[in-house]
Amino acid sequence: MTLDFKTTIMNEIKIFCPATIANLSCGFDVLGLCLETAGDEMIIRKSDIKGIRITKIVGANLPLETEKNVAGVSALAMLEAIETEFGFEIEIYKNIKAGSGIGSSAASSAGAVFGINELLGRPFTRKELVLFAMQGEKLASGNAHADNVAPALLGGFTLVRSSNPLDIIKIESPSELYATVVHPQIELKTSDARSVLKQTVSLKSAITQWGNVGGLIAGLYTKDYDLIGRSLHDEIVEPLRSVLIPGFDLIKQTALENGALGSGISGSGPSIFALSKGKETADKIAKAMSAVYDEMNLPYEIHVSKVNDEGIKIVSP
Amino acid sequence: MTLDFKTTIMNEIKIFCPATIANLSCGFDVLGLCLETAGDEMIIRKSDIKGIRITKIVGANLPLETEKNVAGVSALAMLEAIETEFGFEIEIYKNIKAGSGIGSSAASSAGAVFGINELLGRPFTRKELVLFAMQGEKLASGNAHADNVAPALLGGFTLVRSSNPLDIIKIESPSELYATVVHPQIELKTSDARSVLKQTVSLKSAITQWGNVGGLIAGLYTKDYDLIGRSLHDEIVEPLRSVLIPGFDLIKQTALENGALGSGISGSGPSIFALSKGKETADKIAKAMSAVYDEMNLPYEIHVSKVNDEGIKIVSP
Repeated sequence: MTLDFKTTIMNEIKIFCPATIANLSCGFDVLGLCLETAGDEMIIRKSDIKGIRITKIVGANLPLETEKNVAGVSALAMLEAIETEFGFEIEIYKNIKAGSGIGSSAASSAGAVFGINELLGRPFTRKELVLFAMQGEKLASGNAHADNVAPALLGGFTLVRSSNPLDIIKIESPSELYATVVHPQIELKTSDARSVLKQTVSLKSAITQWGNVGGLIAGLYTKDYDLIGRSLHDEIVEPLRSVLIPGFDLIKQTALENGALGSGISGSGPSIFALSKGKETADKIAKAMSAVYDEMNLPYEIHVSKVNDEGIKIVSP
Repeated sequence: MTLDFKTTIMNEIKIFCPATIANLSCGFDVLGLCLETAGDEMIIRKSDIKGIRITKIVGANLPLETEKNVAGVSALAMLEAIETEFGFEIEIYKNIKAGSGIGSSAASSAGAVFGINELLGRPFTRKELVLFAMQGEKLASGNAHADNVAPALLGGFTLVRSSNPLDIIKIESPSELYATVVHPQIELKTSDARSVLKQTVSLKSAITQWGNVGGLIAGLYTKDYDLIGRSLHDEIVEPLRSVLIPGFDLIKQTALENGALGSGISGSGPSIFALSKGKETADKIAKAMSAVYDEMNLPYEIHVSKVNDEGIKIVSP
């Protein structure tokens, strides 16, 4: 594909790149949702020099070398699929901490390809961009997964029905669904969180899990908050991973006691999420979760956010 | 609960008890659908003699003793939950062969409790009746499962999110969805079909399976026939069970080549189902499946049916 740049006007774009919650209890490796109030910003501008340059990173100690940066790698994958006369400069303003479990690398990977796509006049759909952004995830974790980049790009809930070939279904969020996410300030590497997994599961647990995935998807389409709550269980991964997260059981129990529909590990942790109906309950849960970590003298960050049905947003122009 | 029979008028009811397809490839032990053109008939009438009597069985060699008959056992379970001055006589006209894999025992179990419930003035919802009918399934297979009795009673597609506590979600079928079901005339006992299962599965296959369950549910809600088709895969149970079914691979391949959205084992087999969009394709698949078994000199029965969104139907009065 060749594009004539003389017909495009935009030379620079500033975007908001949202944090995301992957897995969502029963939906290990297939489900994710997009947040509205937590995320990074990126500025991407056209350059006469071909190729991709990361020109600035604020808020995180991440490599500026294009080939070592998830945004750079994703952008390069995209430029392999389309011919341009231009190059692109990328500035990254990180708010999402690396290793937090709310899609830090995904926000940068998805943001880079989203921004470049806008500057190119949208040659690719948001779904098509997922494939490029997955290359950033591959750099970050060794695994080109879409659990976080899909909700970051598409918004709402996303189901990755299949990774190969990639088949992503976007599901709109019920309008009153809120997430509370607490991030205890310890770093848990995706690779460590992966190493505790067992490679086999009992058929019985697997059946329970796919029953719950079905229930969660049905609950989202029918906006049945109770069904969403009843489906938010994970007897396969959570028991293995939760031991790596300080205070997990107490935080989860506290969330449920304060009205959460469900609670579990965000991505591969250490962040813990709770879903609830309405902002009031989500705020109440945030307060109660904070009290638990305050009591433990464990530093944390906490976010309360509506599910973001749009995904990455243009801040300017 | 006590009911006054003098206020009810109906003394006898004739019902159609549909065949059902459980599992539906990815949805092992959780999904099922209800058929419209294949099923039994039952006549249930009030009697001055308390208790349940099976007074007639036509079309099958099944026990008349109440405690040994799935309809009898289901009805007894129901009468334990409600006090009545009357008893009930049950006549069963079987068309669905035992051991066919399209819910023969479920049709009788569900029919018995449905019919009695109607004669009692509907003290129970259809969902509540599922619990009683599951007792018939327990007698038939040793396992009180709801995969067939749920769709027989509720119609459409049903998801058994959880068996304990029972949590069933009914999903309306997309209007053009048809099933073709071929029953090779060999008997395959549920217990034999269960014995080939492995008690553990790989995490990778389990993830694939719950991704497909999610995709199938999403496809049903969005009436996306292609997504339904892409989701109809089973890499866990089908490879183990299909070897028990003569000609399975060829029948499935034939169905797909003739336009089926997907194809797999119905229940625990030996019946093989295919889903398709529109009756024309379903008929074409039936013809092609028939040719395969004709060529193999294997006797078979074949059904083409729209998905029955209503479940058990009253024939008269």
